[in-house]
Amino acid sequence: MARLKKVYLEPSEMPKQWYNLAPDLPTPMLPPLGPDGKPVSPEMLAPVFPMNLIEQEMSTQRWIDIPEEVLDMLSVYRPTPLVRAFELEEALKTPARIYYKNESVSPAGSHKLNTAIAQAWYNKKFGIKRLTTETGAGQWGSALSMACALIGLECKVFMVRISFDQKPFRKLLMNTYGAECIASPSNETKAGRDILAVTPHTPGSLGIAISEAIEAAVTDPTGQTRYSLGSVLNHVMLHQTIIGLEVKKQLLKFGEKMPDVVIACVGGGSNFAGISFPFIYEKIHGAKIDIIPVEPSSCPTLTRGPFLYDHGDTAKMTPLLPMFTLGHSFIPEPIHAGGLRYHGMSPLVSAALNDKLINPLAIDQIECYEAGILFSRVEGIVPAPETTHAIAGAIREAKKAREEGKEKVILFNFSGHGLMDMVGYDKYLTGKLVKHEMSDKELFKYLKELEDYPKP
Amino acid sequence: MARLKKVYLEPSEMPKQWYNLAPDLPTPMLPPLGPDGKPVSPEMLAPVFPMNLIEQEMSTQRWIDIPEEVLDMLSVYRPTPLVRAFELEEALKTPARIYYKNESVSPAGSHKLNTAIAQAWYNKKFGIKRLTTETGAGQWGSALSMACALIGLECKVFMVRISFDQKPFRKLLMNTYGAECIASPSNETKAGRDILAVTPHTPGSLGIAISEAIEAAVTDPTGQTRYSLGSVLNHVMLHQTIIGLEVKKQLLKFGEKMPDVVIACVGGGSNFAGISFPFIYEKIHGAKIDIIPVEPSSCPTLTRGPFLYDHGDTAKMTPLLPMFTLGHSFIPEPIHAGGLRYHGMSPLVSAALNDKLINPLAIDQIECYEAGILFSRVEGIVPAPETTHAIAGAIREAKKAREEGKEKVILFNFSGHGLMDMVGYDKYLTGKLVKHEMSDKELFKYLKELEDYPKP
Repeated sequence: MARLKKVYLEPSEMPKQWYNLAPDLPTPMLPPLGPDGKPVSPEMLAPVFPMNLIEQEMSTQRWIDIPEEVLDMLSVYRPTPLVRAFELEEALKTPARIYYKNESVSPAGSHKLNTAIAQAWYNKKFGIKRLTTETGAGQWGSALSMACALIGLECKVFMVRISFDQKPFRKLLMNTYGAECIASPSNETKAGRDILAVTPHTPGSLGIAISEAIEAAVTDPTGQTRYSLGSVLNHVMLHQTIIGLEVKKQLLKFGEKMPDVVIACVGGGSNFAGISFPFIYEKIHGAKIDIIPVEPSSCPTLTRGPFLYDHGDTAKMTPLLPMFTLGHSFIPEPIHAGGLRYHGMSPLVSAALNDKLINPLAIDQIECYEAGILFSRVEGIVPAPETTHAIAGAIREAKKAREEGKEKVILFNFSGHGLMDMVGYDKYLTGKLVKHEMSDKELFKYLKELEDYPKP
Repeated sequence: MARLKKVYLEPSEMPKQWYNLAPDLPTPMLPPLGPDGKPVSPEMLAPVFPMNLIEQEMSTQRWIDIPEEVLDMLSVYRPTPLVRAFELEEALKTPARIYYKNESVSPAGSHKLNTAIAQAWYNKKFGIKRLTTETGAGQWGSALSMACALIGLECKVFMVRISFDQKPFRKLLMNTYGAECIASPSNETKAGRDILAVTPHTPGSLGIAISEAIEAAVTDPTGQTRYSLGSVLNHVMLHQTIIGLEVKKQLLKFGEKMPDVVIACVGGGSNFAGISFPFIYEKIHGAKIDIIPVEPSSCPTLTRGPFLYDHGDTAKMTPLLPMFTLGHSFIPEPIHAGGLRYHGMSPLVSAALNDKLINPLAIDQIECYEAGILFSRVEGIVPAPETTHAIAGAIREAKKAREEGKEKVILFNFSGHGLMDMVGYDKYLTGKLVKHEMSDKELFKYLKELEDYPKP
């Protein structure tokens, strides 16, 4: 019989509830603030999100039931396999045992479908007809387009201009699912027009695209459109925890009790939260686990940004969120990991850092693509540019284990495949990629705008 | 608990042997013929293939052991899931139960990796250092590039020009795996130069690319290069039977004994053989199963071609194979299902048709893309253009079941995803696709060249 390389779960073993980290954090979460500087009420969010998701956003319940119909839709691709990376271990000559959770087997190619299906379902249930959203690399836009097709909602996606131009197939994929996809900033919204007036050739950013998508939702005169966000918010983190909850049971099938290190790439925080929150729970309750979010050195929110109240978008349409941030006007260098080009960070992930439960790391894209190429050639799967950050982090840990002679268990999230994002690989292979590191001067410039904001 | 949508297999349930249809065919297979019109000997094939694969090619053993190391490598993505297409059934309001075998979860995105891993392994074992091959849509070239990276062989891929130009990401993917990929016809071979001299703007064809790849292998002065083919040959069909062997056990887990209809798209024959041969075995032994290969109406080898001895390639480098053929000079219209643009057909599949064990069907690409879009929107996975042919066939059968009011079990092979082949979807959605049907005149022209060949 072949070595045990991957495990699934029986249908009966599938998680039936999502895990909410909020009630377990040692320091209670700070609330989001409205324009008046006071905590936002559920009613204030009602034009943007359906009330059932607002309730989840503000919930302090530890376990939240996954609706039967959502479980049914998730079961097309869940559980995703947990895979032992034997060949990577061998290539690195490490005594560590490396496992990766392969979220790329989702039909959308990434973990994003976990929350897309849930959000589309709750919106439909609430009587909404149409969703708007933004997308960076296109993973989220593809996932929400697919979920809307499955559930029967219209969908409009504002895609960051630089990615829209670099990845024409992403738009075609969304069109195939029946969704509309336009480049952001666009002329369709005031937020977009304002940006284009000042910087007509801007590559765009997630912050701008979010502004446009929110505006498009709240200005629909029928009142039947809502906005959907693929990361950052508490209910998004919640929906992703199914990843880590599955992993916990799958590790036992490999005969492992607990990982020593948990690694994921981090942009807005959702795939990191998905795999790590169930293990942060264990850490809070005494387990010794090193939990590492890896971000690009060109967008170093967790490693260099301060913890402040800031808007989630560029046009300041969102409430103020308590989070690590580079400032809402920050437009990152056009590195290829579009999904990691975000100025802010999930408030839940930010709170975990404040409570010293996680140890962030910033890695340059050159080291990341190097890791992605090695992984492709020894394990066979080409990772998304975002995912290469997690792999680079895992490789660093595996080498450390080799130097220390330690039999560590390293777990990372293989958040998505790169089959629709090959341009960056071409640039790497032909020596055209450059290092991007943010200067202090640049950082100060954007943060200065936040001087008069309420402080957390 | 959610409805049972998909099943895998336990590691202990995995097939340990491939199934060889040859010994079970009612009419014995005809041998391939050499330039002298006599059956080719194993030695004559030795410059092209390693002897261990030549033995498999000529084997009349019913069951052939899968080497332990090959099973280990396959276990990264096998077993692939068998999925019940509940949403498609509902959309079609059919009483039929539709199941699809999802080969798209392979890291190469299609079933091609099943034989790529096996062939690379046998070549490596035989001491070969380098493989050459051709690719149409790019699925096979990607799969062999990946397998060579995993096993440690060099790889050179001749990619049909029309696909090379339409699908730039495919080349990047092969490069990422460390393989070389060039457009065919190329200036690197005599076969390529001869074609370019006459038709410099030809879109290319699988037949031409095969000629180039064989030439590149047999002319290597070191003798350490061999050629690898992704379809047509007996040993390729053999390696793919793991698909149908898994399905047999998986259907039982769904509570189904036997399908009523088995459907797959067919170009050279490999994914069709993979899912259907184990069921053809059942049919030979009395089961009532309708087994349907679906081909494009622009390349109607099984439905309109005669059964003749013909070369597998355009430059007539291969032995004469007993098969249904449109003539080795036939260059199909540039439809997007590049993997189905082949003039010939697997001799084993051809023999099964001669024995009336299968019922081929030709469908136009417009109906196929329509089926692909419907499938994408209700089941969530975007099929490869090739795979849409199988879906279109399954939809026809499901509608027939509705009209007849019959509770049929329809099984089809979801051979690959279309994430790297979105251009055709764009053309379909923007109304730019046209119907392609082969004229009788065209057919006669190419077949005339075969007049003086030995007859089967």
